Amino acid sequence: MSPKVSKEHKEQRRANILEAAKDVFIEHGYEQTTMKHIMDAANVSRGGLYQYFTNKEDVFESLLEEMLGDSVEKAKKLLAEKGLSHWELLLTCLFGEDRTPNNKMHPISATSLEFFITGRKDTRRREYGKMRYYNGVKLFADIIDEGKDCGEFTTSFESETIARTIISYTDGLAVDYAMLPSEDVKLREQSEVFIEYLKAILGVKQ
Amino acid sequence: MSPKVSKEHKEQRRANILEAAKDVFIEHGYEQTTMKHIMDAANVSRGGLYQYFTNKEDVFESLLEEMLGDSVEKAKKLLAEKGLSHWELLLTCLFGEDRTPNNKMHPISATSLEFFITGRKDTRRREYGKMRYYNGVKLFADIIDEGKDCGEFTTSFESETIARTIISYTDGLAVDYAMLPSEDVKLREQSEVFIEYLKAILGVKQ
Repeated sequence: MSPKVSKEHKEQRRANILEAAKDVFIEHGYEQTTMKHIMDAANVSRGGLYQYFTNKEDVFESLLEEMLGDSVEKAKKLLAEKGLSHWELLLTCLFGEDRTPNNKMHPISATSLEFFITGRKDTRRREYGKMRYYNGVKLFADIIDEGKDCGEFTTSFESETIARTIISYTDGLAVDYAMLPSEDVKLREQSEVFIEYLKAILGVKQ
Repeated sequence: MSPKVSKEHKEQRRANILEAAKDVFIEHGYEQTTMKHIMDAANVSRGGLYQYFTNKEDVFESLLEEMLGDSVEKAKKLLAEKGLSHWELLLTCLFGEDRTPNNKMHPISATSLEFFITGRKDTRRREYGKMRYYNGVKLFADIIDEGKDCGEFTTSFESETIARTIISYTDGLAVDYAMLPSEDVKLREQSEVFIEYLKAILGVKQ
């Protein structure tokens, strides 16, 4: 008879596996990572790993979900808080709580790109990518819409289109960052220019 | 004794192979394409193919070189021609001779992304990607610099940084386009917004 494991304990185990898998995916990329790598890094048996995840794709998507969940939660909390302008909220979603661009990019971003680019001919993965894309578009478009409603932003362009340009731009930074070291991509300087773009088109005076 | 083949004939043969390879790479992507696919599509023997190219990477890079060469030639010709403003020149480099964004993206762009993203841990491929990145940055930065020199553009931001944002943005469109059909990416609408961004930061009045 196998020992009873509490729900909390199971969740903790799952979280530990994901944490270990994150480092493995960053190190090896998506294609080169195996379930064996993850077992070793998380220090679990094969049975222990497959109890939580059906395959490598499942591990990686769970990891992405968890990371996205965290940032959406943060954004919602900030939306609920009074005091932040919609412009500040946009900057928070883009650059984190200090709203200031820096030279750091999440190290998993290159693996994430690889996951979607190499899987682009797979129907299931395309659907998943599309769902994530539209979630991102909606996050930014909602903030821009609300900023327009309260007169903070100008209404010259559709919020959704502006939101798409934000996604495309950050996807592009991820490509360049995957290929080049950050000192070559100049993330901070580029983001400062991108902020000016957004200010101009949203009519932000600051 | 093998028959003598003129230099022109050889160049033509090589060009034919690249043309056939282009379609193969678009259809199968980079990783899934084999030299056998290319032999079949180009209707050449193994010996006929390896006479021109040492491996798949060589074929693909030669293809990219040829396509880049074409567009740089065009840009140089336009730079030499009188009559185009630097703003029009920028638009030409971005959107082609009619300087108007549309919903089309070169179908090889997804394969090209795959080539660089999956090869990002390979020293040689990284170097090659870096060289191409800086060629692109220089192309745009030179036009912006000249536009500043003749008073057409404002000088608020470094030309090189603006050039980098152009590259990042187009790389991002390529990512989104690789994952989603163009009606979901809305290339034309996004590019219209990006043109407004550039106009604002370069001080273009039109």
